[in-house]
Amino acid sequence: MLVAVDAMGGDNAPDVVVQGALQASIETGIDIALVGDEKAISAALKGRRVPGNVSIHHCDEAVLMGEAPLKALRNKRGSSIMKAFDLLKTGKVDAVVSAGNSGATMAAGILKLGKIEGVERPAIACIMPGEKGSVIIIDVGGNVDCRPVHLLQFGVMANAFALSYLGMQAPTVGLLNIGREEGKGNEQIRSAYNLLRDSGLHFIGNVEGGDILSGESQIVLCDGLIGNIVLKMAEGIAESISIKLKREIKTSIPGRAAAIIGRSFFRRFERSLDYAEWGGAPILGIKGVGIVCHGRSSARAIRNAVMMAVTFVENHVQDRLCEQMVKFHA
Amino acid sequence: MLVAVDAMGGDNAPDVVVQGALQASIETGIDIALVGDEKAISAALKGRRVPGNVSIHHCDEAVLMGEAPLKALRNKRGSSIMKAFDLLKTGKVDAVVSAGNSGATMAAGILKLGKIEGVERPAIACIMPGEKGSVIIIDVGGNVDCRPVHLLQFGVMANAFALSYLGMQAPTVGLLNIGREEGKGNEQIRSAYNLLRDSGLHFIGNVEGGDILSGESQIVLCDGLIGNIVLKMAEGIAESISIKLKREIKTSIPGRAAAIIGRSFFRRFERSLDYAEWGGAPILGIKGVGIVCHGRSSARAIRNAVMMAVTFVENHVQDRLCEQMVKFHA
Repeated sequence: MLVAVDAMGGDNAPDVVVQGALQASIETGIDIALVGDEKAISAALKGRRVPGNVSIHHCDEAVLMGEAPLKALRNKRGSSIMKAFDLLKTGKVDAVVSAGNSGATMAAGILKLGKIEGVERPAIACIMPGEKGSVIIIDVGGNVDCRPVHLLQFGVMANAFALSYLGMQAPTVGLLNIGREEGKGNEQIRSAYNLLRDSGLHFIGNVEGGDILSGESQIVLCDGLIGNIVLKMAEGIAESISIKLKREIKTSIPGRAAAIIGRSFFRRFERSLDYAEWGGAPILGIKGVGIVCHGRSSARAIRNAVMMAVTFVENHVQDRLCEQMVKFHA
Repeated sequence: MLVAVDAMGGDNAPDVVVQGALQASIETGIDIALVGDEKAISAALKGRRVPGNVSIHHCDEAVLMGEAPLKALRNKRGSSIMKAFDLLKTGKVDAVVSAGNSGATMAAGILKLGKIEGVERPAIACIMPGEKGSVIIIDVGGNVDCRPVHLLQFGVMANAFALSYLGMQAPTVGLLNIGREEGKGNEQIRSAYNLLRDSGLHFIGNVEGGDILSGESQIVLCDGLIGNIVLKMAEGIAESISIKLKREIKTSIPGRAAAIIGRSFFRRFERSLDYAEWGGAPILGIKGVGIVCHGRSSARAIRNAVMMAVTFVENHVQDRLCEQMVKFHA
């Protein structure tokens, strides 16, 4: 198994990205193709233990975080993310991982690989730790202004992903809305509700913001604008609570005492708040395995994203996605 | 000062509502008009210390939580929420507080009092505890499918509220979006961006989900659909983290030890996660003071909402809102 990692993507590229990719390779023995500026990558590798199955694929350009995706891809055809998907298209690698501009990553994936039969809009799915287990939110930023039929297709894709990647059985599907009652929300959501009701998915109706992590439904469907805001807010809150906890510990004597005695406890608690633990988010609907990561991913998050790509390939998630789409349209 | 409290509104009405209203009255001496079924209210008052300035205003009906707002108001003209706003309209009370159906509360407010000159859509504002102080999010559920000009008006209203209620000076205003760069988001948001840039408000551009609590901007503007989801998710996460903390404490020895030593610390930390501490959310844009509360408000949250109504009246927030709207349109 060979995973291409966009070494130039992310706020701390290439250093942190390279470090995370190496970690994954050392722990599991998988082959890694680091795509990006050879000089910069070599500098990042310097002084580290580099397994023999880690290779460098040079390219001159890279898409920056703030760039408009389509324009950037047009102007930088030789960018690391385009090169990575080129390797996937020509069968030289099995999957692509990038912590770079996620809009550009998705656009490059569509441009190079094309879309799965029956999918109008590929979308980014994200796994969050809910009260009752994993929750899949889709779309978390691939698309704004989704049409109802797109939300329906997200449901079908997420269902296939839940079955084959997470081993769920008939996962519950909820539509993110302002209230649970039928008829709530805007036109887009109300139409999507009707499509989902007749879809054959295990649709449980509308869910609210507070239901996302309570695990009311195992799959949460929403427009990419909302999903992106919700995801970033969740990360922000977890971080804010972590800061609050540290501040409280520092400023009170009982807090300090508790921190000393419960060190292992606090460490575990903090890790449970760290969404980076969950690694990447797969792009569902393109003809190949592409995983996007947060721009400010830690080395551990990159490692986890590479592991996600490996499981994605090993579990034949891509085949299940195609099958489900065909089945759905038939 | 006399505050009308919708005694029939909320998941635990009238008991918890009555209890919270009494708390506010006992602590501050303000007069309370409990609006609702006399028998049920009397039963809730039984055995409690009831100050002499707490009165009951009987009515037979109440709007239920799940009811469609406009239909409910049409069929139940004598409902507690309609009666409460009637009292406000006729000058018998100074403000209305309700933990009932928030859509119906807002609709009743508009129906009975009318809208402030220049406001097309009243909206619900909510104050959240950010990293750098209070953050106002508007709209958190009053409207879906807002037009760009509505978002602009929310900004003007929130600005007046921030100045007069929170004592902020030239508060920063951000537009909730999928990314910070100009040009991001859907049509609605991009148009609102242009209006806000030229508005004279202290507009700092787009903010992301992660910026809400970090306090990137003091006022966050969004469609009610998004605001409602974000608000409920924040509450859900805080609750989920609180549950996680308790579970961790129970299952690990260091956790248990830390909990015993740091009891006061943990209690304070938990309270900081409790959004009920912040009480109610004002309806901005109607001709009078109306505060909505969460359906599952605790007595403490109701108490805080009554206090908010009092400050709202004392600080002449309503006058400032009208002035700012006139000034803006001029």
